[in-house]
Amino acid sequence: MTPAGPEPSVFRIGLLGRGTVGAAFEQLLPQHAGRVQRVTGLRPELVGVLTRSGGSFQDLLARSELIVELIGGIEPAREYVLAAMRAGRHVVTANKQLLSQHGEELWEVARSEGVQLRFEGAVAGVVPVIRVLQESLSGATIDRVHGIVNGTTNFILSEMARTGMSFAEALAEAQRLGYAEADPSEDVDGRDAAAKMAILARLAFDTPVHLDQVRYEGIEQIKPDDLEYARELGLGLKLIGTAERIGGGLSVRVHPAFLYPGHPLASINGPFNAVTVESATITEITMSGPGAGGPQTASAVLGDVISAMIPPASTPATTESLPIVQDVVSAFYLHLEVADEPGVLAAVAQVLATGGVSVKSVVQKGLGDQARLVMVVHPVLESLFTAAMGEIARLPVLRAPPRSIRVLEEQFG
Amino acid sequence: MTPAGPEPSVFRIGLLGRGTVGAAFEQLLPQHAGRVQRVTGLRPELVGVLTRSGGSFQDLLARSELIVELIGGIEPAREYVLAAMRAGRHVVTANKQLLSQHGEELWEVARSEGVQLRFEGAVAGVVPVIRVLQESLSGATIDRVHGIVNGTTNFILSEMARTGMSFAEALAEAQRLGYAEADPSEDVDGRDAAAKMAILARLAFDTPVHLDQVRYEGIEQIKPDDLEYARELGLGLKLIGTAERIGGGLSVRVHPAFLYPGHPLASINGPFNAVTVESATITEITMSGPGAGGPQTASAVLGDVISAMIPPASTPATTESLPIVQDVVSAFYLHLEVADEPGVLAAVAQVLATGGVSVKSVVQKGLGDQARLVMVVHPVLESLFTAAMGEIARLPVLRAPPRSIRVLEEQFG
Repeated sequence: MTPAGPEPSVFRIGLLGRGTVGAAFEQLLPQHAGRVQRVTGLRPELVGVLTRSGGSFQDLLARSELIVELIGGIEPAREYVLAAMRAGRHVVTANKQLLSQHGEELWEVARSEGVQLRFEGAVAGVVPVIRVLQESLSGATIDRVHGIVNGTTNFILSEMARTGMSFAEALAEAQRLGYAEADPSEDVDGRDAAAKMAILARLAFDTPVHLDQVRYEGIEQIKPDDLEYARELGLGLKLIGTAERIGGGLSVRVHPAFLYPGHPLASINGPFNAVTVESATITEITMSGPGAGGPQTASAVLGDVISAMIPPASTPATTESLPIVQDVVSAFYLHLEVADEPGVLAAVAQVLATGGVSVKSVVQKGLGDQARLVMVVHPVLESLFTAAMGEIARLPVLRAPPRSIRVLEEQFG
Repeated sequence: MTPAGPEPSVFRIGLLGRGTVGAAFEQLLPQHAGRVQRVTGLRPELVGVLTRSGGSFQDLLARSELIVELIGGIEPAREYVLAAMRAGRHVVTANKQLLSQHGEELWEVARSEGVQLRFEGAVAGVVPVIRVLQESLSGATIDRVHGIVNGTTNFILSEMARTGMSFAEALAEAQRLGYAEADPSEDVDGRDAAAKMAILARLAFDTPVHLDQVRYEGIEQIKPDDLEYARELGLGLKLIGTAERIGGGLSVRVHPAFLYPGHPLASINGPFNAVTVESATITEITMSGPGAGGPQTASAVLGDVISAMIPPASTPATTESLPIVQDVVSAFYLHLEVADEPGVLAAVAQVLATGGVSVKSVVQKGLGDQARLVMVVHPVLESLFTAAMGEIARLPVLRAPPRSIRVLEEQFG
């Protein structure tokens, strides 16, 4: 019995490690296999998972075209990644320890073997700092990189600032919510961020940077007092990684720092990561998003896998044919210049109610020729709102045509 | 007379158009040629520029491996881009009009000819939204894209909010500063943003989107009143582009909207662009930076050119060998628990002055057992500051070890 049509070509992936990210990747891959196949022409398939309790690396390698390394740590991850590349396989990893200490060795082997070694997930989760530094900014001379690259510490500092709680209390809260591990020492002492900054500095400045060369301090010593000071002056207090040219050299360091309010990283709160890249040519660009979490990092890993499957040069043909919707739901602000007389609000409210538009808030402002109604209405189909506006425009109490602007609400619809 | 060593391989680039971006690209390329050669092994060289007043396209094409199209508009840009790709040349363009109206035709030819058509500069200048959507997020199912994709209107709205000036006044200011063109109509009426959102929607949702399907409104009708309302409620007022799944369809639109304070786009001010991509898997990522300007867009174009020169799979060998600097300059916050007695400030100030540390501000807080000095010192070499801290720690008036945190200043050093 053979299948009727030709079998789609399969792209075989071997996974090393089934921790938080590994398990998330195992779940994500089949969900996206159809879409990946439409884009690349190849169906990605997980051929096996090597875990501490089972599986043979050599066997998995023999059956895979690409190895995803999500074991973490130095050995045996290093040995496996080297062996996979020497066997001509592409490798995708999220291993910041490995790259910040053995990166040059690994990149050298990738170049000499002509295989891809991708590692977007190693820094800032799904925030695409690696690709942007390596590719988008390959035409820019970078002067400085600032990063909030550890979500655990950013969550703790945000909680301390928001509630006034102590470091120990905020750490306990982070552990309860899953934003900190049972042993959080490498997060809170700055070493995790230092590894990530070593990788970013290497890419931004084209110079070898080893974790041992990165000076780091953590946030264990931060007191509620310090955050009170920051609040009084409108400053942010963050664990900041910095890599910058100084004279003819490079400084790479991680430490807590107060940020002035306009700094692009000052508004990054909670378990988020963000990286700002400064260059004379481009001024600065900032990227932010969730910094960790299994599904987010797994999504970065999958992006790397897809890039390894196809040279990403050409825009694939469309795979969808979605109808374009014109009438959508929106909340609105409504500004009415009205006569200063009784019954105006009632007349307007009546028209809105009849038209199916529900008022969320209303303020009456000014007197006489300056009298105004400023309202916000709940989300409503735009066609209904526009019809109601047409009715309102005809009310004799209006002194000028009504004005409206959409409102993007936090909880929409 | 022949050169002593082998000539480096040259990568020949033909440029179409010498407007703001074209002229900036012409200037940028030789500045970065050395670095590009170290990374790619090829020396990029501009072989000619086609302008309205001179040059033959056919001649330029024959001598180029890659064509950079910076003419703008539909024809003859479309004809040239198609001809270049059909002749097997890669093309880099920043032409949003062309891609939002003829994108499918162009991408189809790029695929069938096996050439690269890159266009990072077409949307949001150097903010790498195109590459991130096409490559980093190829493993994510996207639900919504929000963007501030027109720097002119964002500058105008920021100025209106900051100063209370009218739309006409803010537009004049934008023109004076070079943030708005002499004919700003496509910027202020939303059409420019609509073209960019058509391109982003096409990439985010894998479905054909034509500029004609994007509903747009501009900012000409916004009154100082509306921005006053926004200020009172702490809202941002922005020209927002949206592309989102609605039911089984897609809505793509551009209009002014109020944003709640925590929205990632609410803090984007001035002539900046920013794009937020939302997906269930990744939560959201935001990218921001300068949205336009010749050098910025030229830098995005150069990034595309480099990507076309090499498959960006492997991390190039380091090209620098920068010494790692450990002692850097920083401003510091200093928190001292001190005895509540006369002369404490004088004693501390004396130690700092002797150590070469200059005080910027000082606040005395609390009484008795709560007495504190909170100071900020001007930027100083960290080694000097650390030495002074050692001296201060030995002062008998200290009730606890001194604490310090670095301060990132807006104007540094």
